[in-house]
Amino acid sequence: MEYNEVPIDDTYAEAFPAWIARVIITGATREFALAAAVEATGFATSTIGCPCEAGIETYLPGDMTPDGRPGYAILICNPSKKKLKEQLIERIGECVLTAPTTAAFDGIPGADEKIPVKLHFFGDKFESQVKVGDRDCWSIPIMEGDFVVEEEYGTVKGVAGGNFFVMGENQMAALMGAKVAVDAIAEVPGVITPFPGGIVASGSKVGSKYKFMNASTNEAYCPTLREQVPDSKVPENVKSLYEIVIDGVDEEAVRNAMAAGVRAATKIPGVVFISAGNYGGTLGPVQIHLRDLI
Amino acid sequence: MEYNEVPIDDTYAEAFPAWIARVIITGATREFALAAAVEATGFATSTIGCPCEAGIETYLPGDMTPDGRPGYAILICNPSKKKLKEQLIERIGECVLTAPTTAAFDGIPGADEKIPVKLHFFGDKFESQVKVGDRDCWSIPIMEGDFVVEEEYGTVKGVAGGNFFVMGENQMAALMGAKVAVDAIAEVPGVITPFPGGIVASGSKVGSKYKFMNASTNEAYCPTLREQVPDSKVPENVKSLYEIVIDGVDEEAVRNAMAAGVRAATKIPGVVFISAGNYGGTLGPVQIHLRDLI
Amino acid sequence: MEYNEVPIDDTYAEAFPAWIARVIITGATREFALAAAVEATGFATSTIGCPCEAGIETYLPGDMTPDGRPGYAILICNPSKKKLKEQLIERIGECVLTAPTTAAFDGIPGADEKIPVKLHFFGDKFESQVKVGDRDCWSIPIMEGDFVVEEEYGTVKGVAGGNFFVMGENQMAALMGAKVAVDAIAEVPGVITPFPGGIVASGSKVGSKYKFMNASTNEAYCPTLREQVPDSKVPENVKSLYEIVIDGVDEEAVRNAMAAGVRAATKIPGVVFISAGNYGGTLGPVQIHLRDLI
Amino acid sequence: MEYNEVPIDDTYAEAFPAWIARVIITGATREFALAAAVEATGFATSTIGCPCEAGIETYLPGDMTPDGRPGYAILICNPSKKKLKEQLIERIGECVLTAPTTAAFDGIPGADEKIPVKLHFFGDKFESQVKVGDRDCWSIPIMEGDFVVEEEYGTVKGVAGGNFFVMGENQMAALMGAKVAVDAIAEVPGVITPFPGGIVASGSKVGSKYKFMNASTNEAYCPTLREQVPDSKVPENVKSLYEIVIDGVDEEAVRNAMAAGVRAATKIPGVVFISAGNYGGTLGPVQIHLRDLI
Repeated sequence: MEYNEVPIDDTYAEAFPAWIARVIITGATREFALAAAVEATGFATSTIGCPCEAGIETYLPGDMTPDGRPGYAILICNPSKKKLKEQLIERIGECVLTAPTTAAFDGIPGADEKIPVKLHFFGDKFESQVKVGDRDCWSIPIMEGDFVVEEEYGTVKGVAGGNFFVMGENQMAALMGAKVAVDAIAEVPGVITPFPGGIVASGSKVGSKYKFMNASTNEAYCPTLREQVPDSKVPENVKSLYEIVIDGVDEEAVRNAMAAGVRAATKIPGVVFISAGNYGGTLGPVQIHLRDLI
Repeated sequence: MEYNEVPIDDTYAEAFPAWIARVIITGATREFALAAAVEATGFATSTIGCPCEAGIETYLPGDMTPDGRPGYAILICNPSKKKLKEQLIERIGECVLTAPTTAAFDGIPGADEKIPVKLHFFGDKFESQVKVGDRDCWSIPIMEGDFVVEEEYGTVKGVAGGNFFVMGENQMAALMGAKVAVDAIAEVPGVITPFPGGIVASGSKVGSKYKFMNASTNEAYCPTLREQVPDSKVPENVKSLYEIVIDGVDEEAVRNAMAAGVRAATKIPGVVFISAGNYGGTLGPVQIHLRDLI
Repeated sequence: MEYNEVPIDDTYAEAFPAWIARVIITGATREFALAAAVEATGFATSTIGCPCEAGIETYLPGDMTPDGRPGYAILICNPSKKKLKEQLIERIGECVLTAPTTAAFDGIPGADEKIPVKLHFFGDKFESQVKVGDRDCWSIPIMEGDFVVEEEYGTVKGVAGGNFFVMGENQMAALMGAKVAVDAIAEVPGVITPFPGGIVASGSKVGSKYKFMNASTNEAYCPTLREQVPDSKVPENVKSLYEIVIDGVDEEAVRNAMAAGVRAATKIPGVVFISAGNYGGTLGPVQIHLRDLI
Repeated sequence: MEYNEVPIDDTYAEAFPAWIARVIITGATREFALAAAVEATGFATSTIGCPCEAGIETYLPGDMTPDGRPGYAILICNPSKKKLKEQLIERIGECVLTAPTTAAFDGIPGADEKIPVKLHFFGDKFESQVKVGDRDCWSIPIMEGDFVVEEEYGTVKGVAGGNFFVMGENQMAALMGAKVAVDAIAEVPGVITPFPGGIVASGSKVGSKYKFMNASTNEAYCPTLREQVPDSKVPENVKSLYEIVIDGVDEEAVRNAMAAGVRAATKIPGVVFISAGNYGGTLGPVQIHLRDLI
């Protein structure tokens, strides 16, 4: 199968369920909402080593937010609901409450499950309950004025680890293919690409020759090891590759993101192959086949 | 005392020692180095609730980096050397190794103390030792090519919690004063402003009326509580205030940053008072008086 | 009348007809399309002294552009159709053809009137006709590869000079009100705000006490002259004001933009009055009353 | 000759004298100074079709500007001193005077020649003379407050058209090579790269097979015509190339910029050749040989 004249591997991305919450961060201006969203979604590429996976889902103009101010929706994601709650509390408390001009609201108000995030105790009994539209919020006096925050965040069982590989005849072609894919995915509702700039440069396999390591480089996908390892998955004409990892609120969203990403990446000259990562079905129950996307 | 016709409080910032490491992250282009630096310094505003404090210190053009490529120096900061080591490993491993086109180098090579950050084991015995200039590094095969990384990071006992308050006749004046201060501090070597966009909107005191809370809003610095609390520190003409918190490699650097920030903030119309935060000398041994700065 | 508790003047913006063309600039990535769009819309704030008015209307993801690549739509505007043609030729020829990875397409293909922009002659007989979807384009060999360009640009009689004033209790409040208005207007289809950052700091009246000047500062709207001039339009509680000027493809678009801008600006604390600019109906036939917007 | 293992052509860039002025634009914050600088330097890639060449030279922190606020220095360049004067007046008048919070100052106060830029007449006799440090300026009442501007701008005979070519094994390699070169040149004092994003995708030769065209594509540098034209300058392994054009205040500055750019570009994998453009010495008296740079 080809798309934009680029061969598409007949394989699938293997993904798995994870709990996801969505926080709407508003600010006096777009810029200040963004500063908080960037801080709140940092150090959150992979739950292998970070306390959660997180990213900015979308910009929301003022007519799409609870308080009529510009904002950003972020997704925070963890396979464990308990750890998701911890991270919601810490990231709203340390990165939004402290940020200039911001407020925080539940981004999935219709979810069946709610995570309580009791931030109003910070107000030391100076806080008060307020309504923002029909939402129950708290207003906490702080240095800049009053911080408004909702305290229950809907959570849904979403899908983490959606992915595809962008392979290039050299590094800059693969890189620009990955970059334009990330930009395209940014327009898809309900998803994030949690790695730096949305792009993964380094893939891992489970286990290692070093006994004390749980994970190590996935040599089958290392172009510079192509001649050295028996089972390389790197095609002969590929000198570099990147992975795009996608977390989303449901499988449909992840599927849409993968499709948008592949369509965009294959427009870049020098992108020569698209594939996807799976573990033969041992990791997760969700399988998204590339051939179904385009 | 006045500066740019703005009254400067006769008080001091109280700061305390903390261990600091400096990581130089280079990339193929400035943009990709920045993506990694942003991710690696996120969720790192305050060690009260984040695993460390971190921020971008400065951009480094290619002629100032070990491998001749553009980069950013970041500072990672923690009162505990053990926690600093953990965070160095996780943040380089999860946010730089995984980021496109990057390499990581020690940013304080002359420091007496070194923190070992053994990342080469990720290479699963495919890694090899390489020299970058006169630095001993490891080259680890990954998907995009080879990741180059230094494994020992110099650490120094720096100063955390340097600070000053920018107070305004309304919120937007205080906010722009804070913002221009952060931009000015960005030019000072050896410091970071770890909060979102460099600005703190919410200050805390130790303890709370709620027994289970260790920290809570500092009502003495809340403009909307000015009439309600007996000991308010908010001047009558102040409707909003922000704090700039500074961590630096030594007291001199923090002092320079505070001076640059105060000079800049006082140029903004509507900024009407500058002060600084201290706990009467109970928190930390470092006292930086505003009157000595300008 | 009030909106978000801010008084809205009972007056109207006076606007006038102008010819508008829309150019879709695509690029390999969003970033490169933007670089061309920024260059092509520079030096274009007001036809009083610039050769046209121009600005970026909107970002277009790849699934909304003729060639499937990310892009930006820009508007170019002039009361004279002849000058609009000149500017289309020069700005596409000097700022898009020369920009990395870009292509240029007609953004109003359904317009009754077309402006011919014969760029293919630059190809020196090496150029060839190509189809992009169902559009007739030219492909011109250049250094980076081949430049693809459409040669007929639809033009419509739009509306220029839509406007409103954001007045603040001090400069930073007015400025942030203007800024958030510009961000809100950026989401409205069919309009641009051609001034630097979308904001006008300096208004003019026709004529001057200096005989050789056709235009000069509009003292009635100068806060620092409030006590000096007999007919000041600056309310007593206003220390600074900004104007947002809007050009759009039709009156409806300009009206939507004004409404979005006023709604956003009035959310900023310290914005205390909204008005609009007119010349008593002597300048243009279009009158947009603020009371009809919200 | 090779640099970073990339062959460097044994040729020279041919450049020519042009008049240059430097305007320092300051603002309340870095961001607002930048908005004015971007507008004032747009539509200014090449004097072939634009009224001047212009670009941002450098950011200036508050401690390096006349009024202590953050700013940007821009260069405006034209072979004709008369046209340079016209453009100075129009670009300061339309793009800086109108921009929020800005002021404009002479950036080459030590120059022997001065260009008068009489903007104070806009003040309609409400203007007044003020000192900013030891500089004679005018203060003009406008909507946001008072606009401060210097009225004499030093001009020097600089060098325009400094250049080099970045050639790649494919388009993305050449493009990233060009991009990193532009970033490196941004650090060099006294120069600009006036094309969109600093990069030229399309080169021209004098004359055309179409009689009415003065300039047309330079087929000798078109990779897609390599097999068709007898005298192609495109090496066999090159599929795409970009030019970096540099204007500077003197030959030394242009030379430094070329050196910085070549050093940076050759670090990008897939950049395979560096050359420079000349017309056999017929265009301009300045010849800068690549071999002397590195």
